[in-house]
Amino acid sequence: MRQSQLFTKTRREAPKDEEAKNAQLLIRAGFVHKEMAGVYAYMPLGLKVVENIKRIVREEMDAVGGKEMIMTALQRKDVWQQTDRWDDEKVDVWFKSELKNGTEVGFGWSHEEPITEMMKQYIASYRDLPVYAYQFQTKLRNELRAKSGIMRGREFVMKDMYSYNTDEETHAAFYNSVIEAYLRIFDRVGLGDRTFLTFASGGAFTQFSHEFQTVSDAGEDVIYLHREKKIAINKEVMLPEVLEKLGVTEDELEEVKAVEVGNIFNFGSIKSEQLGLTYKNEAGEDVPVILGSYGIGITRLMGTIVESFADEKGMIWPESVAPFRVHLVSMVPNDATVVAYADALYEELIAAGVEPLYDDRDVRAGEKLADADLIGIPTRIIVGKDTIASGELEVVNRATGEMKKISRGELLNSFRTVVVAEEVAAVEAAVEAASTDVIE
Amino acid sequence: MRQSQLFTKTRREAPKDEEAKNAQLLIRAGFVHKEMAGVYAYMPLGLKVVENIKRIVREEMDAVGGKEMIMTALQRKDVWQQTDRWDDEKVDVWFKSELKNGTEVGFGWSHEEPITEMMKQYIASYRDLPVYAYQFQTKLRNELRAKSGIMRGREFVMKDMYSYNTDEETHAAFYNSVIEAYLRIFDRVGLGDRTFLTFASGGAFTQFSHEFQTVSDAGEDVIYLHREKKIAINKEVMLPEVLEKLGVTEDELEEVKAVEVGNIFNFGSIKSEQLGLTYKNEAGEDVPVILGSYGIGITRLMGTIVESFADEKGMIWPESVAPFRVHLVSMVPNDATVVAYADALYEELIAAGVEPLYDDRDVRAGEKLADADLIGIPTRIIVGKDTIASGELEVVNRATGEMKKISRGELLNSFRTVVVAEEVAAVEAAVEAASTDVIE
Repeated sequence: MRQSQLFTKTRREAPKDEEAKNAQLLIRAGFVHKEMAGVYAYMPLGLKVVENIKRIVREEMDAVGGKEMIMTALQRKDVWQQTDRWDDEKVDVWFKSELKNGTEVGFGWSHEEPITEMMKQYIASYRDLPVYAYQFQTKLRNELRAKSGIMRGREFVMKDMYSYNTDEETHAAFYNSVIEAYLRIFDRVGLGDRTFLTFASGGAFTQFSHEFQTVSDAGEDVIYLHREKKIAINKEVMLPEVLEKLGVTEDELEEVKAVEVGNIFNFGSIKSEQLGLTYKNEAGEDVPVILGSYGIGITRLMGTIVESFADEKGMIWPESVAPFRVHLVSMVPNDATVVAYADALYEELIAAGVEPLYDDRDVRAGEKLADADLIGIPTRIIVGKDTIASGELEVVNRATGEMKKISRGELLNSFRTVVVAEEVAAVEAAVEAASTDVIE
Repeated sequence: MRQSQLFTKTRREAPKDEEAKNAQLLIRAGFVHKEMAGVYAYMPLGLKVVENIKRIVREEMDAVGGKEMIMTALQRKDVWQQTDRWDDEKVDVWFKSELKNGTEVGFGWSHEEPITEMMKQYIASYRDLPVYAYQFQTKLRNELRAKSGIMRGREFVMKDMYSYNTDEETHAAFYNSVIEAYLRIFDRVGLGDRTFLTFASGGAFTQFSHEFQTVSDAGEDVIYLHREKKIAINKEVMLPEVLEKLGVTEDELEEVKAVEVGNIFNFGSIKSEQLGLTYKNEAGEDVPVILGSYGIGITRLMGTIVESFADEKGMIWPESVAPFRVHLVSMVPNDATVVAYADALYEELIAAGVEPLYDDRDVRAGEKLADADLIGIPTRIIVGKDTIASGELEVVNRATGEMKKISRGELLNSFRTVVVAEEVAAVEAAVEAASTDVIE
């Protein structure tokens, strides 16, 4: 994408009403726009990051057998009354309104109830189970305060999955497979080394629920961390019997601030009993379905990535979620030779399968470099007058600041090697499949 | 996808409270779930169709220079008051609620106002223009009645694009390019031959707006159609001077019912003046920006496709938007040879780049065929005992009912030819790009 065609602008100053570092940087770089406190619109660069995170989460949810669908924002009162979660005194984040005929409606802050109610149509027998369904949904929560930027919003994107199993054993196997999938997700978005499986209160049905907490000064939670064992304990369950069960002692634990980027929860049969979701087992008896729920805050995860990697110059995106992998910066916009060289390289990079963000704007070189630092694309390629003279491009790593000079041919080949290898592998696989013996 | 893993079920009977054919069929086939009147959740098969339509629309919006972003559901009262569209007497489809501190908020039924307000941050000079921004947004509209299924919802997905230009001339050029893009979209989703550019009332600034109307008995609109000239006229502008301007006479026109699947609108400078969006021209003068808006109802389009092609047996999806291109049906679930053959063919089709919906369920053959008709995937491949004996598969075209018998090798090659050709072309392009002279 040519940066001249990107309608957002960077700004030097953060908005005065914005306390959180993530929102300050995202707004300054033009990734998000603040509509009101806790409510952010996602501009082209920001939306690309959201979609990259969603793609990774989707791949991992599909891999454990999840099926993607999408529920609705509008919510029925009668469904939520069955679990006693309609009343504002029970759930204090509802936005509510009403239809023209006076029927009250709510706006979805969570979706366990409507999806479980819906499953009564699809689940009747043990043969219909298990069911694993997930969605990426815009949740609406009437939070009293919203001052953590995109990490705690009144409107935000969440991935929520729900599992329906016949019994605790098959439920536990799936639950554990999701723990593994979540750990892979946090690895893939670059937060693996600072994200910990955390034991938290389990509610009525089970001893523990599990949170995934990313250590960060921007966090609103406090956890007790055992770095070597790669686990943590939430304050609410810091009890002697829990420590003993987990095989740790209090003095081994480190108290740190953290962001809850994911959580998984075993509801057992409670919600199914409340909502009347049962199945017939092989003996023909009606048995309540075992329900689990599995959340990842997509936009919160994006905010956590910003908070985790940003430096004093701006954001630093891991390659897996960066809006672009490469930032091509043409340094001398009024020099026709430099412009022609950069234009050609831009097209060649696209042909090589790596569309860069291309700073073709008619602004000073210093401003371009400051903007590139702020935007935080992992690899920067600089085209200046020197490039034409020496035949070498400056390639800068945004995270480390490391610079190396390489020729255009080397640069293109380094990307092409990856892309062509992927394509050749695909063709070979297809050809191989075509030549295998077929049963005819 | 294995159909045994799809959690939705088909049903023989449509829900009693559902009048619209599109919703009856989509619910019966398990594509959507009705949460309340006009509010539908999209199950895996339904979501795939939505995403396929979005992909086509996205490609065409990108091709005219649109940049994708996403605004918010929550809306600020002060923004909408500036254009006098907050009051329920002016706009009768608002859902409203309030924050904990008593601040009133609305839920987005449209987004011209907030996006134009936002653009004041990004547009200051003629050098910042034009801007073309679009989103796929879940709109919330408090409709008095909602009885057309997914064709008129209280919650639905819309693509809305907004254009910001310096003057009427550049605006008109873009406006016309969007007309062309819209016609390509309706062609690509299979509705090209029955969708007409329709002249409608233009409001205060311009004589006409343009609608895209698909002729359908399920439509809520009446239009006057000139089939040869491929244009139509909305009732509200059926005036002698309009007919003359368009070069048609009343007796050449056919009165038909139609669905408004898209509309485009020239706001001129009205909204920019109301909201204070101006730019500095080359002379340094403040000039209001020219605004256009361009909508396509994504879920309405999906409903229109259902209404347009369904027959007495169920839905018929055009290949471009079908949830799967191929429906592989294993007819004898208790015959190990048939199952092994079908399982192997399923894997081979995936390897050939065509993931089918694979009916591997343990149900009667008649039920499978009835479900396949209802679901409406364009190409059906039937594996039965005959297949093993004869070495030939039955391939059935859902739309025409045409059946042909072909060998497994021929079948796989017919798909592979397309997929491999695409991959080879990609490799060749990359190799060619690699071998061109580089300026070094």
